[in-house]
Amino acid sequence: MEYRVEKDTIGEIQVPADKLWGAQTQRSKENFKIGGEKMPVEVIYAFAMLKKAAALANEQLGKLSADKADAIVKAADEIMTGQWNEHFPLVVWQTGSGTQSNMNVNEVIAHRGNQLLEQAGKSDRLHPNDDVNMSQSSNDTFPTALHVAGVLAVENDLLPAITKLQDTLMNKSKEFMNLIKIGRTHLQDATPLTLGQEISGWEAMLHKTSRMILHSSSEMKELAIGGTAVGTGINAHPDFGRLVAEKIADMTGKMFVSAPNKFHALTSHDEVVYAHGALKALAADLMKIANDVRWLASGPRSGLGELTIPANEPGSSIMPGKVNPTQSEAMTMVVTQVMGNDATIGFAASQGNFELNVFKPVIIYNFLQSVRLLADSIISFNDHCAVGIEANVDKIQFNLDNSLMLVTALNPYIGYENAAKIAKHAHKEGLSLREAALQSGLLTEEQFDEYVVPSKMIHPKA
Amino acid sequence: MEYRVEKDTIGEIQVPADKLWGAQTQRSKENFKIGGEKMPVEVIYAFAMLKKAAALANEQLGKLSADKADAIVKAADEIMTGQWNEHFPLVVWQTGSGTQSNMNVNEVIAHRGNQLLEQAGKSDRLHPNDDVNMSQSSNDTFPTALHVAGVLAVENDLLPAITKLQDTLMNKSKEFMNLIKIGRTHLQDATPLTLGQEISGWEAMLHKTSRMILHSSSEMKELAIGGTAVGTGINAHPDFGRLVAEKIADMTGKMFVSAPNKFHALTSHDEVVYAHGALKALAADLMKIANDVRWLASGPRSGLGELTIPANEPGSSIMPGKVNPTQSEAMTMVVTQVMGNDATIGFAASQGNFELNVFKPVIIYNFLQSVRLLADSIISFNDHCAVGIEANVDKIQFNLDNSLMLVTALNPYIGYENAAKIAKHAHKEGLSLREAALQSGLLTEEQFDEYVVPSKMIHPKA
Amino acid sequence: MEYRVEKDTIGEIQVPADKLWGAQTQRSKENFKIGGEKMPVEVIYAFAMLKKAAALANEQLGKLSADKADAIVKAADEIMTGQWNEHFPLVVWQTGSGTQSNMNVNEVIAHRGNQLLEQAGKSDRLHPNDDVNMSQSSNDTFPTALHVAGVLAVENDLLPAITKLQDTLMNKSKEFMNLIKIGRTHLQDATPLTLGQEISGWEAMLHKTSRMILHSSSEMKELAIGGTAVGTGINAHPDFGRLVAEKIADMTGKMFVSAPNKFHALTSHDEVVYAHGALKALAADLMKIANDVRWLASGPRSGLGELTIPANEPGSSIMPGKVNPTQSEAMTMVVTQVMGNDATIGFAASQGNFELNVFKPVIIYNFLQSVRLLADSIISFNDHCAVGIEANVDKIQFNLDNSLMLVTALNPYIGYENAAKIAKHAHKEGLSLREAALQSGLLTEEQFDEYVVPSKMIHPKA
Amino acid sequence: MEYRVEKDTIGEIQVPADKLWGAQTQRSKENFKIGGEKMPVEVIYAFAMLKKAAALANEQLGKLSADKADAIVKAADEIMTGQWNEHFPLVVWQTGSGTQSNMNVNEVIAHRGNQLLEQAGKSDRLHPNDDVNMSQSSNDTFPTALHVAGVLAVENDLLPAITKLQDTLMNKSKEFMNLIKIGRTHLQDATPLTLGQEISGWEAMLHKTSRMILHSSSEMKELAIGGTAVGTGINAHPDFGRLVAEKIADMTGKMFVSAPNKFHALTSHDEVVYAHGALKALAADLMKIANDVRWLASGPRSGLGELTIPANEPGSSIMPGKVNPTQSEAMTMVVTQVMGNDATIGFAASQGNFELNVFKPVIIYNFLQSVRLLADSIISFNDHCAVGIEANVDKIQFNLDNSLMLVTALNPYIGYENAAKIAKHAHKEGLSLREAALQSGLLTEEQFDEYVVPSKMIHPKA
Repeated sequence: MEYRVEKDTIGEIQVPADKLWGAQTQRSKENFKIGGEKMPVEVIYAFAMLKKAAALANEQLGKLSADKADAIVKAADEIMTGQWNEHFPLVVWQTGSGTQSNMNVNEVIAHRGNQLLEQAGKSDRLHPNDDVNMSQSSNDTFPTALHVAGVLAVENDLLPAITKLQDTLMNKSKEFMNLIKIGRTHLQDATPLTLGQEISGWEAMLHKTSRMILHSSSEMKELAIGGTAVGTGINAHPDFGRLVAEKIADMTGKMFVSAPNKFHALTSHDEVVYAHGALKALAADLMKIANDVRWLASGPRSGLGELTIPANEPGSSIMPGKVNPTQSEAMTMVVTQVMGNDATIGFAASQGNFELNVFKPVIIYNFLQSVRLLADSIISFNDHCAVGIEANVDKIQFNLDNSLMLVTALNPYIGYENAAKIAKHAHKEGLSLREAALQSGLLTEEQFDEYVVPSKMIHPKA
Repeated sequence: MEYRVEKDTIGEIQVPADKLWGAQTQRSKENFKIGGEKMPVEVIYAFAMLKKAAALANEQLGKLSADKADAIVKAADEIMTGQWNEHFPLVVWQTGSGTQSNMNVNEVIAHRGNQLLEQAGKSDRLHPNDDVNMSQSSNDTFPTALHVAGVLAVENDLLPAITKLQDTLMNKSKEFMNLIKIGRTHLQDATPLTLGQEISGWEAMLHKTSRMILHSSSEMKELAIGGTAVGTGINAHPDFGRLVAEKIADMTGKMFVSAPNKFHALTSHDEVVYAHGALKALAADLMKIANDVRWLASGPRSGLGELTIPANEPGSSIMPGKVNPTQSEAMTMVVTQVMGNDATIGFAASQGNFELNVFKPVIIYNFLQSVRLLADSIISFNDHCAVGIEANVDKIQFNLDNSLMLVTALNPYIGYENAAKIAKHAHKEGLSLREAALQSGLLTEEQFDEYVVPSKMIHPKA
Repeated sequence: MEYRVEKDTIGEIQVPADKLWGAQTQRSKENFKIGGEKMPVEVIYAFAMLKKAAALANEQLGKLSADKADAIVKAADEIMTGQWNEHFPLVVWQTGSGTQSNMNVNEVIAHRGNQLLEQAGKSDRLHPNDDVNMSQSSNDTFPTALHVAGVLAVENDLLPAITKLQDTLMNKSKEFMNLIKIGRTHLQDATPLTLGQEISGWEAMLHKTSRMILHSSSEMKELAIGGTAVGTGINAHPDFGRLVAEKIADMTGKMFVSAPNKFHALTSHDEVVYAHGALKALAADLMKIANDVRWLASGPRSGLGELTIPANEPGSSIMPGKVNPTQSEAMTMVVTQVMGNDATIGFAASQGNFELNVFKPVIIYNFLQSVRLLADSIISFNDHCAVGIEANVDKIQFNLDNSLMLVTALNPYIGYENAAKIAKHAHKEGLSLREAALQSGLLTEEQFDEYVVPSKMIHPKA
Repeated sequence: MEYRVEKDTIGEIQVPADKLWGAQTQRSKENFKIGGEKMPVEVIYAFAMLKKAAALANEQLGKLSADKADAIVKAADEIMTGQWNEHFPLVVWQTGSGTQSNMNVNEVIAHRGNQLLEQAGKSDRLHPNDDVNMSQSSNDTFPTALHVAGVLAVENDLLPAITKLQDTLMNKSKEFMNLIKIGRTHLQDATPLTLGQEISGWEAMLHKTSRMILHSSSEMKELAIGGTAVGTGINAHPDFGRLVAEKIADMTGKMFVSAPNKFHALTSHDEVVYAHGALKALAADLMKIANDVRWLASGPRSGLGELTIPANEPGSSIMPGKVNPTQSEAMTMVVTQVMGNDATIGFAASQGNFELNVFKPVIIYNFLQSVRLLADSIISFNDHCAVGIEANVDKIQFNLDNSLMLVTALNPYIGYENAAKIAKHAHKEGLSLREAALQSGLLTEEQFDEYVVPSKMIHPKA
């Protein structure tokens, strides 16, 4: 491999000749050989957007030449296309301020920008710190990139995925709105409802958690930029933070603003904890939905068997013909991951000291992993399972006909205690509810048939 | 002990003669000898409020006689005064729908209401299921009581506590707004800020998390009542849920409404997960604040020593004269508890099946414990620590004068790399920054004195 | 209320006249009005045992008079009977070293000991610090009491509870060892096994986790005592730690020893994290067992219905005759609590600084809560559910007869792919496996009947 | 891209022509486009080892021809060299039994084995299910591979890493065994100890948790293999499980054995929960150590400043000359990740149903991530920080000389209360302890100098 020599304030260091990064990136690469979890590319892109916005703001404030600003903008744009991804080799497990990833971006932009300046015959040259990082510190840029990356992932990836599954469930709910089935509480037979009603509960979960996620992640639209090293804004212009936030808002179409208190913005990640709490609420609901689907589809002969789900692959390497609810399984594993990520984020967010929290990389790594896994698994569950859910009408009808909990309809007529006696008698003797009710002598045939009608038991009654 | 015989649909059972509860409470008491964690009294009071509202609604809908409704209302009012607390003996670790606590309330109200009816010479008598539980199920009443208890605890106890500490911090922030001190990032000396700015960051945390908590807990204002057994509202009047929610809103002054989807309301506790996520965000911030306070007050001789906090008690049983930051310690222990509670709630909320989630008691137990511990520890921290925080001005000035990171002010004049050389030289040789700067030959004495002025380093500059 | 005046190094303070505690306890009571979670009585008793052992050791080492030692021993013995419980009013949320609870014990023993000395006409008087706390610090006594209380709770309460349920399951396993039933993997029908085999898996879980719990909690048998203030043992005799550990070992019959490194013993709670990890392993298994039981008992008409469990109470306040798996519900709620407690303990244990970890009270509170809840819920589940489990033989046989997964027995004869075709054909056409197999032409009737025999499918074959 | 057509029991599917995988792998790739977390390569290698052992066992039992067995062995050996890594494209978020990764291995081995058979001119051809998966099921192979991969990672990677850091700390402890410094408890000055003693506490943490990790991970040496589909061992020879375990033990040099209860082995992952609990104990200790190091090295001017750590990189993008404790930061971020992984594993392990737990991939993914991150960050911390720790002797001496807590040495002579008065007086008046003691009149100069000697305060005294 060929190398070139780069230097920083520590000294000289060899860098692979074909890489755009500089000395500090190289040092981090060598000093932090920990795991394989790269700084998420969404963070790199958000950084590039931020560097572009900062360059434009610095130019506007008269601090940066047009040529330099232009070179930064172009290099940043290139990064956002994904073409330089391999030039961001650093892992999550580095300095907790993310300084090294900030410098990685500064170095790549400076290096690439200088190539562009040279190609254009310009005399200006970019310095990673003095120009690309002008008016900035890792301490305000990393949390800014963190918030931008988080909000974009939530709004552009996760919320549309939820909407997609929500639409599917709404359609299924409508399709089965009149298909009456037995209810189950405590896993035990209960009073009836329609399959459409049951599915409407799932849809409502997505509806509610979407709202929670949108609202809570919006707290992340306050950006740290402008706070620089410790929140005071030293070495930045008073308008810098506001200008950068406005430019990012323009580029993304999201209402990013400059955080009102920069001391908070560098040291607290309460917004991320809060937004991830909404992701956890979604995860809890998804586990419930995925479980319901696989239980209702359990069988084919000895389970509940009320639903049929698509058979996408052979289910077993030893049991021929077996079909398993694999999409539910992938989704529920994702849920357990999100729950763990939530613990990590809460812990990490609590460990700030004085003017900085130095657990930023692990926080955004977990947040983005949760968002991505949730979004992907929702789409996968939707496309390969939910859209193909069918009702097993015969089994549903059979279960309904056999139910003892239709007895609940008798409460208003004969009281809870008498109704209980009938249900218990039927259960003990293996009778139908009707048989047991008539044997009790408390009702006539006509009364029973008038009172115990499943279709009257699925809504309130005036 | 004297006993009376009570019965339910299982059979007869002996109940202590001086207790108002009935057969089902007694059975639960005997069948669930697990731990000592009682169903929180806030849940009992919320239940009483709910039973009162339900009786009034049933009366209004023509389903319950005025005498019966009146007896229920009076008994419920008595419960809410706290006078019958010992008649609610059940623990959290019971049936997961909270049926037994619902029945405990039904039984006590029926029993006490019947005493009142008898005393008043009325002939009507209350039945726990048919009258007190009329139009209801445990499956919709327990989550209703859960939401009511949770919202009241948050809004009446926690938010005012936060405001109190916020006020204290705002005052401290103003008091010290011009006291310049060294900043610290990565625990290392950084550029300066004022103590008031530093404290403003803490205040901003409380400001932000208050907003999060208020918003997210408002999702809990949707009530399950009206859903009855499985969400369909069987055995309830179509207006019942709405009427009860309105009456509870009237009684509490909070905007409770009937949940738009009752299938969701019985099976999902996403609102609680979400609201507790906001509590966790607060907890993360509190750990940060409490840690900053104790670190800044560390010493008295060999710590950072920039703050003085009240000495409330002897700190050590062996080291005489020792004073410890005990309020910070209590608060940070509370934080670890809240983090664990968050894990419990998320897990429990994910485990619903079909028409019911049967982890309701453990969910509300943890939620209310978090709210209470946070509220109490905030008040305690405020009263016994925060209000007494004083600045150790001499130590603060000494630290500031010695700082090398004032060098950051030179970046715009001599560039990052030259500035780094000066700082390193000063550190290595034990020089003051000024001495090292002048030795570098890059600045004159006048320039240094013009550029490096702490009071100019605590805000942005145009 | 009547008061007496007590004093400590802070000054004078009023203490209720009828209470044995002194100034420092009173201060803590007033300064920490947080929650209602009292320092667990098991910790108080362990402290009393420790104070007794320390007094005897100090006497033996010639540092404490026989009269004083005797008074301490007698007072400590009284505490261990439970008669003075109300004199230990402090909550968990106090100083993180537990100093205030250590002083509470010191004060009560001194006060009560002085009453005894006076009654006996002795002239010696006990000082809480100089005598009862002689050669000790909160920093070594609290972790010692923590370990003693934890080990005793595990060995005396939890392990016997596990053994009890294990015995029940072993008996059930034997009882049903030949009852063949359908297996289920992925909730889908699978190859058969016997109900006894299935239950043997549950029993094996208890067997394994018992071993884990016993081994890991034994790490807690290393005691901090002798380390005093910072681990150096200042103000203690070199033999003191060893002597006290030996005396505690004698009193308890457990192999407690003096910790080999006292700096570790004051600052690390890795043993508690580790031991609670074993409790979490148990909890995970209990959730599995409790879930299996309630799913297998689901019904009565529309569930799996292979088991019958005791009906201990009316299950529903609205659905008459409903019986719910309430013991499973209590147990699974306990599991979610233990999981949360585990998060709290891990977090708290990580937060030590320098010579002390100041999260000790919250650690032992959660540890003991887990132990108690697990022990109690296991006993409750055993007594009110497991011992009454019965097999629903008809349903089991019906499910087995209908199973398609018996096809797996054909793999060795016709290969996986052909077997899969038969199973799919049967499923699609609603045929029995036998019918579909014969239609395939791949086997004769005789071959099918020879190969597909459930009783041959429940063990390996040579 | 070129494709070939493969088929399974679902039908035909196109597979990239240059890939060794087959139909089921391809289906999984298309059906589970979730995240980017690949099934860890350690699991693939463990699977290869298992397939090799199984082939040899089947050959030995007369069920598989020598040619076939040989082809499987060779293909498996190739996989273990890493040369076919790109042929294992599946993600963690697939079916929860790991069936698709088992089939991925079966397909690659069959395909590659057939190439080898063809090259060797043999007529036998391998079938992924009938030959490579012979006597096996995903349900017993995946947990076997999980245990093998876990144990190897722990014993080959993590434990040696811990030992390395332990050695470094032991050397540092010896080096500084006589360097007396101030102790700190509650962050407040306390009685002295030596720096060597302090570091010995860290070393003891590694010593203890190594033992815990080794012991608890050994529970994972029980292998599920032989249980096949549901634990009964259907379609396997009675000796198969034992033989395979023996062969794996031979290959690895670790004491793997066949699990005594296969129903447990397929449904419970209590061993992984337990072993990860030990990892969490290590993580808690590492946070403590990394925090102590960075706090003691805090400064350079306004921190505690008692240690110096290596300056590996520029610390700040804005503050020139800043050096940060980045290795501590990486390590503490890893700790928060391990804590979250622990929550995920516990949750996932609790969710088994009947004969299978279908959260296996997420469990091993998290376990291996924890092991790798811990091992890597320990090595990184050791090499780039711990080995370079130096004592700042001047600062240490200065702090010691100023300490008030040396007063503790006076307890045995003048009692706790008098000693407290002296310390408080010194603190209030800014005196040295000696000055305040003499002013008290309780001691002579000679007595003070005899009693208060730091070097006598760092160990017990007879």
